[in-house]
Amino acid sequence: MVQQERARTTRAAIIGAAARIFEEQGYGGTALATVATQAGVTKGALYFHFPAKEDLAVAVIDEQHAIASADGVRVQALGRPALETLVLICRGFALQLLEHSVMRAGIRLTFEASAFGHDVRQPYLDWSARCAELARTAQDEGDLRRDLDPEAFARLVVGSYTGVQMVSSILTGRQDMLVRLADLWRMLLPGVLAADRQEHATHLVDVFLHGTT
Amino acid sequence: MVQQERARTTRAAIIGAAARIFEEQGYGGTALATVATQAGVTKGALYFHFPAKEDLAVAVIDEQHAIASADGVRVQALGRPALETLVLICRGFALQLLEHSVMRAGIRLTFEASAFGHDVRQPYLDWSARCAELARTAQDEGDLRRDLDPEAFARLVVGSYTGVQMVSSILTGRQDMLVRLADLWRMLLPGVLAADRQEHATHLVDVFLHGTT
Repeated sequence: MVQQERARTTRAAIIGAAARIFEEQGYGGTALATVATQAGVTKGALYFHFPAKEDLAVAVIDEQHAIASADGVRVQALGRPALETLVLICRGFALQLLEHSVMRAGIRLTFEASAFGHDVRQPYLDWSARCAELARTAQDEGDLRRDLDPEAFARLVVGSYTGVQMVSSILTGRQDMLVRLADLWRMLLPGVLAADRQEHATHLVDVFLHGTT
Repeated sequence: MVQQERARTTRAAIIGAAARIFEEQGYGGTALATVATQAGVTKGALYFHFPAKEDLAVAVIDEQHAIASADGVRVQALGRPALETLVLICRGFALQLLEHSVMRAGIRLTFEASAFGHDVRQPYLDWSARCAELARTAQDEGDLRRDLDPEAFARLVVGSYTGVQMVSSILTGRQDMLVRLADLWRMLLPGVLAADRQEHATHLVDVFLHGTT
């Protein structure tokens, strides 16, 4: 049991160190030896857990998705209306990006994934499906327009989110990311909210920026 | 003169071959020897024009921007209102991405540019500035809301565009890109058009999909 616990700790330390280096240096620029040194483990221990750099990159991406999914479950448990839930999930994802290097490393590795032959479609498909499901419920709840295509809305949210955070990362190191994403909601909501729910836009932008109260 | 002409032809052939390989293999996966073979030139000729892989990547990115700028000039010369001009420039950019491998390679290299220490902020800043200028004119022309922040709108267009084309590239090899970008305009326009220009939305989406008539 102690040994299993130690293996888990070592694995977590390696993933944490790898995330910090992948985030800064990218897949191509990351050397396993540097990861071992930064994690404070021997090269042997590192190779035991991750035989190849690709395994380490995939572990970081998996860890990113585990964190994001756990936060989605947390938000879902708040029991808010579907559109507010969607906005809160997007807020959580943005805060995690600012907080955890494993999230930022996961994003960078996903952009670079063709370098190590990893199929990166699944996270985008999962995220789209989740958004579309929430959008359909939000239509039933009367918040989103009846004539909105939930799949098209979901794909737009995923695409815009991906790009807005990315351009913010390139131009400001994500310092203006929350403001830019709030702008996205501010300008997008009037076109997707039901005619009699237009006044919700201000509230939802506020929820995105400050959370639910 | 004949020699200069020949050098230009060789250089163009190298850039064309490099674009096709960078697009498929990325920066890390591209070997200069393969580029020389595909371009039908000797390695010596390639090294004469591009001493390092980095030089070749920067040349592809520069060529991408030259193509995009030339198309911007073409659209500007049509003399349409500013908002329609912006939509037409975005249409042109999307069509070029579908048509020219140098555009797709340039985008991929820009995402990977930290791998070769190239500063990629400038194209995003240039594109933002251009969008913001058109947005200000569109406000003067009464098409965009007076209370819209032109800089925020510009940054949103740049960010959303970047992400929507990227997710389309990952999920469908850009097959649904035009439809997804039209969805972006369809959902975004109601929130940014002036109250008395709301009926322009349908026309502008049509302009994006089919060009000006």
